[in-house]
Amino acid sequence: MSDEQSYVEADGFDRDMNYVPDRITAGARPPEHGPVAGELWPVEPGRYRLVVAAACPWANRAIIVRGLLGLEDVISMGMCGPTHDARSWTFDLDPGGRDPVLGIERLQEAYFARFPDYPRGITVPAVVEESSGKLVTNDFPWITHDLFHEWRDHHREGAPDLWPVAQREEMEAVMERVFTEVNNGVYRCGFAGSQDSYDRAYERLWATLDWLEERLTHERYLMGEAITEADVRLFTTLARFDAVYHGHFKCNRQKLTEMPALWGYARDLFQTPGFGDTIDFEQIKTHYYVVHRDVNPTGIVPAGPDPAVWLEPHGRG
Amino acid sequence: MSDEQSYVEADGFDRDMNYVPDRITAGARPPEHGPVAGELWPVEPGRYRLVVAAACPWANRAIIVRGLLGLEDVISMGMCGPTHDARSWTFDLDPGGRDPVLGIERLQEAYFARFPDYPRGITVPAVVEESSGKLVTNDFPWITHDLFHEWRDHHREGAPDLWPVAQREEMEAVMERVFTEVNNGVYRCGFAGSQDSYDRAYERLWATLDWLEERLTHERYLMGEAITEADVRLFTTLARFDAVYHGHFKCNRQKLTEMPALWGYARDLFQTPGFGDTIDFEQIKTHYYVVHRDVNPTGIVPAGPDPAVWLEPHGRG
Repeated sequence: MSDEQSYVEADGFDRDMNYVPDRITAGARPPEHGPVAGELWPVEPGRYRLVVAAACPWANRAIIVRGLLGLEDVISMGMCGPTHDARSWTFDLDPGGRDPVLGIERLQEAYFARFPDYPRGITVPAVVEESSGKLVTNDFPWITHDLFHEWRDHHREGAPDLWPVAQREEMEAVMERVFTEVNNGVYRCGFAGSQDSYDRAYERLWATLDWLEERLTHERYLMGEAITEADVRLFTTLARFDAVYHGHFKCNRQKLTEMPALWGYARDLFQTPGFGDTIDFEQIKTHYYVVHRDVNPTGIVPAGPDPAVWLEPHGRG
Repeated sequence: MSDEQSYVEADGFDRDMNYVPDRITAGARPPEHGPVAGELWPVEPGRYRLVVAAACPWANRAIIVRGLLGLEDVISMGMCGPTHDARSWTFDLDPGGRDPVLGIERLQEAYFARFPDYPRGITVPAVVEESSGKLVTNDFPWITHDLFHEWRDHHREGAPDLWPVAQREEMEAVMERVFTEVNNGVYRCGFAGSQDSYDRAYERLWATLDWLEERLTHERYLMGEAITEADVRLFTTLARFDAVYHGHFKCNRQKLTEMPALWGYARDLFQTPGFGDTIDFEQIKTHYYVVHRDVNPTGIVPAGPDPAVWLEPHGRG
């Protein structure tokens, strides 16, 4: 996602949740779950490119889920650099500054190829049709949902059941609270426009982190003994917590390292293939500290904290 | 001290060390130690007022030393509020916004009473003559030095020996390193004008914090078994470390709470009468986060960290 472009300040802030709502489904049939507010595209290996940025927590979800499900050979991936400008994420990590498959310098080009007057923020994750170079969807919660539910025929053998049917109802409630209070909650603190809205945001965030700490004291993962989509969604915020949100967004009651269950849980996931190997702390820190000049006018990126602690034994499971 | 007014950026920054160098000595005789670059004033109970701000680490030294030596009834104390403007610290905590003894609203008035064209920053700590309302000195290292050496006849019974003669040479070297690398080192990180100067400042700071961690693993206090002026000078920075310097100044390799010896040492001092009772975390945070708009444009003050941890058992001694 592009932080600056996706928020509107109200009491604290609201995330602009207007995304391109197309879905990619098996045979382009109506999906089993969720809205059909846009077009339907068929699942087809080699047809789509997932465009992400390692810095972005919302894109990080899609990177993790694609990897856990073994979809690397079915859906290609392009990666933008950590710092975008006011217009767009850019492919500045690639040779010549162009995505080698799409041939574009700015993700904005794929958005404009589909909608010449696209009025909203240029966000990651974005799925782009390789042949036409057109944006298919940037509707992040449904991207990972559909990678699981609609691309089942292409999952690797032994892929985890990220959406266990028997737990779906409770899992949706957990994910909703994690989304509003934690994933978004850290931004609500960091982009608060007044002391009052910050203070309220801080209370909300820590109320839910305390609830998660309690829950994870008794369970290895959010839904019990196995990793689900709910863990992916919490992990991407926890991975950025001490490096960015604690200082830059003033979420500083404690560091993650000072919450024993959450910290053990976060390291447990980090050390699971498909999680920690998607985390690039330098890109993460560079993104937030360089792009948010309204929070950090100098653009100087802190040298700490030492990421070596993520590899310490977690003692769980 | 007034942070904005006392720094000049060079490679990172230099502190303006041009203070009003007058000394207050027993009988106005030349002092045993240190320079005589200004006038000499006689030690005299009831004649002087020490003006401080609870927020300021340099003033905090003087508050602690005055208390440890039992000079409260001999030298009165005025306290400025946590946020000064571009011109001066102000007495906004006092009824009517005026210091009840000096009758002034802004500390600047005492500076101008002495030097009508005073060109430099209006800093605390400052010693003011009560009868004339004129500044005597703001030369902070010599203020605490002279409270010990020159006001001996007025110390309380059993006052600590803050400058043990046998250790003076080593203590001066320790204090010099603490001053340049830690007391000033955190500012060098926070006010760095470029990524390079920040990175160098961070390395310098942590090199000395590692050295202190090692030293305090083997000794209860910096100079051994008893509290000295060196501990006072280190404590005032440590007390502000997690609340301000860790996030606001990007001194974030670790929190103080993650350095076992330094953290135990800091709590040991905090829980010693005369130390923790001079610390007002709200004023400290308000000062840095509100005054430094160039670092924190919104002026929003973080709610964390929880100061209750300072009262946990320190396990030393």
